[in-house]
Amino acid sequence: MAKVSVLGAGSWGTALAVLLTQNGHETILWSHRQEQAEELANKREHEAKLPGVTLPEELEITADFERALTGRDVLVLAVPSVAVRSTARRMCPYIKQGQLIVNVAKGIEAHTLTTLTDMIEEEIPGAQACVLSGPSHAEEVSRGLPTTCVVGAKKREIAEYLQNIFMNPIFRVYISPDILGIELGGALKNVIALAAGTADGLGYGDNTKAALITRGIAEISRLGIAMGARADTFYGLSGIGDLIVTCASRHSRNRKAGFLMGQGKTVEEAMAEVNMVVEGVYSAKAGLELSQKYQVEMPIIHQVNKVLFEGKNPAEAVRELMVRDKKIESWESAWE
Amino acid sequence: MAKVSVLGAGSWGTALAVLLTQNGHETILWSHRQEQAEELANKREHEAKLPGVTLPEELEITADFERALTGRDVLVLAVPSVAVRSTARRMCPYIKQGQLIVNVAKGIEAHTLTTLTDMIEEEIPGAQACVLSGPSHAEEVSRGLPTTCVVGAKKREIAEYLQNIFMNPIFRVYISPDILGIELGGALKNVIALAAGTADGLGYGDNTKAALITRGIAEISRLGIAMGARADTFYGLSGIGDLIVTCASRHSRNRKAGFLMGQGKTVEEAMAEVNMVVEGVYSAKAGLELSQKYQVEMPIIHQVNKVLFEGKNPAEAVRELMVRDKKIESWESAWE
Repeated sequence: MAKVSVLGAGSWGTALAVLLTQNGHETILWSHRQEQAEELANKREHEAKLPGVTLPEELEITADFERALTGRDVLVLAVPSVAVRSTARRMCPYIKQGQLIVNVAKGIEAHTLTTLTDMIEEEIPGAQACVLSGPSHAEEVSRGLPTTCVVGAKKREIAEYLQNIFMNPIFRVYISPDILGIELGGALKNVIALAAGTADGLGYGDNTKAALITRGIAEISRLGIAMGARADTFYGLSGIGDLIVTCASRHSRNRKAGFLMGQGKTVEEAMAEVNMVVEGVYSAKAGLELSQKYQVEMPIIHQVNKVLFEGKNPAEAVRELMVRDKKIESWESAWE
Repeated sequence: MAKVSVLGAGSWGTALAVLLTQNGHETILWSHRQEQAEELANKREHEAKLPGVTLPEELEITADFERALTGRDVLVLAVPSVAVRSTARRMCPYIKQGQLIVNVAKGIEAHTLTTLTDMIEEEIPGAQACVLSGPSHAEEVSRGLPTTCVVGAKKREIAEYLQNIFMNPIFRVYISPDILGIELGGALKNVIALAAGTADGLGYGDNTKAALITRGIAEISRLGIAMGARADTFYGLSGIGDLIVTCASRHSRNRKAGFLMGQGKTVEEAMAEVNMVVEGVYSAKAGLELSQKYQVEMPIIHQVNKVLFEGKNPAEAVRELMVRDKKIESWESAWE
């Protein structure tokens, strides 16, 4: 059994800490707030984020950063994407050469267009950053509902090691070498979820949503291939799988923000009503910058940016997506 | 403008006849029952299948087979998949050389493992069979909700001609040369919908459903590639797009039959309660036969067959899918 620390006591970090403890690993859950760590340790429940889920007695909960980082086989980084760089920087002095760090946040840094694992390796030279992603609502995982994910790592033996750490009968883990593809899919799905939510808010049906999901992953895939990722990844669990879950979910902040905009709220009103970080708003900008940098046509992400930042009417944006030039479905498979 | 006949006055045939009339084509809707044809022509509404949708006055409705088949630029075949062979055989004497026939049914013939377009060309030598498919609930199309489909044809100029026939601002049509891939995706998605419905009936969550959809299209794609179809097609509108719509829909008979089985009903009880043809039951057999013939691993379709025909417990089937050998997500993109 391994020594694992999970950094970040949000819903996903907490669910993973419970899973790892159940898998028999010596697990620490670190919260950046002393008060929260004490409350979780005493109540053995995360009332705000995972109500009704018992935190096992064997799970150590701490706010002591050094304690959480020292002598661990695996560190799971489960802080929000906007906190990844600062947390990694703060971690650096405690990290040994070759430390395995598994990022589970989803996002791309605006302007630098850096993925989160690259950011971790920039801030912690000598660390080996990996990624875990897939269609995995935290509440469902902690209720024991069957879930699948994918682990990405540069070396196969590391991917297999992490697969063994996380896998159990209700949590099936696949492995992949394509860290970049996994991270791009995770970050950009939130932009498509904004669009799908907007379509729902406009009163459109399942046909429209399926079209946005299908054409959405197609444009993300085109970008990813141009950046050196592998096409298969976008049609796997961390790509289309995660996108399906996000677009179906009533809990998704991105989908909800889109829904409110579809109903006629302004972007500001929608953000205020959701009252949490809407990751897709940042990723929309990054997606647009990437599409320009790599010269890839991304019509849905383009229209989401117009709605978010140029005050474009959402119904007009959908209309434009529907009447663009007639297209061959996939240029790769056109008539020879 | 073209002369088009739609054969079959179910919900999809009727919705397409309305769409084609609205697009300005001289359209005939043929019903195999005189009584139904008269009722539709008089009431100008298909109360049973598309309540609230007006059938335009310009739409001719008939039960006269010869009238519907003679001198038409395009025939749209919208009968249930089990009636395709017999209908095509009956059509043959009236069909001119080179007649364009667009199949919109979804299925594979059991035992012969023949696709529907192949079946049409077998029964009507000299016809050019094409296919229209995608995530397209008939009710939503007839309510004017934005929808996307794909037309498959052997020749690009025919695909483009049909694209022009069907396309309008709320109905976006892509084109593809991959008839086989489009038909396989359409037929086998119903089997995955049975599995997804079963998972819902068992009380599993969105994570499980997204996993079944994602891994389901992956195994359909593996089969399709072995049969000579193109991978892209399965990740397009007629593959993953249609699968998403079917698995999300409360109207899908396949999903509903699976749901009832997940809740503990026997296969017979579920079929009796749904009280309509559950296409996925037939396609499950065909899928299994194809996986054996082409030696492709299809674990979900395999388990669906065990539940349907060997009395296997559905929860046990899901459990087995979750604990199979640990796998690389996509062998095509493994470490080099």
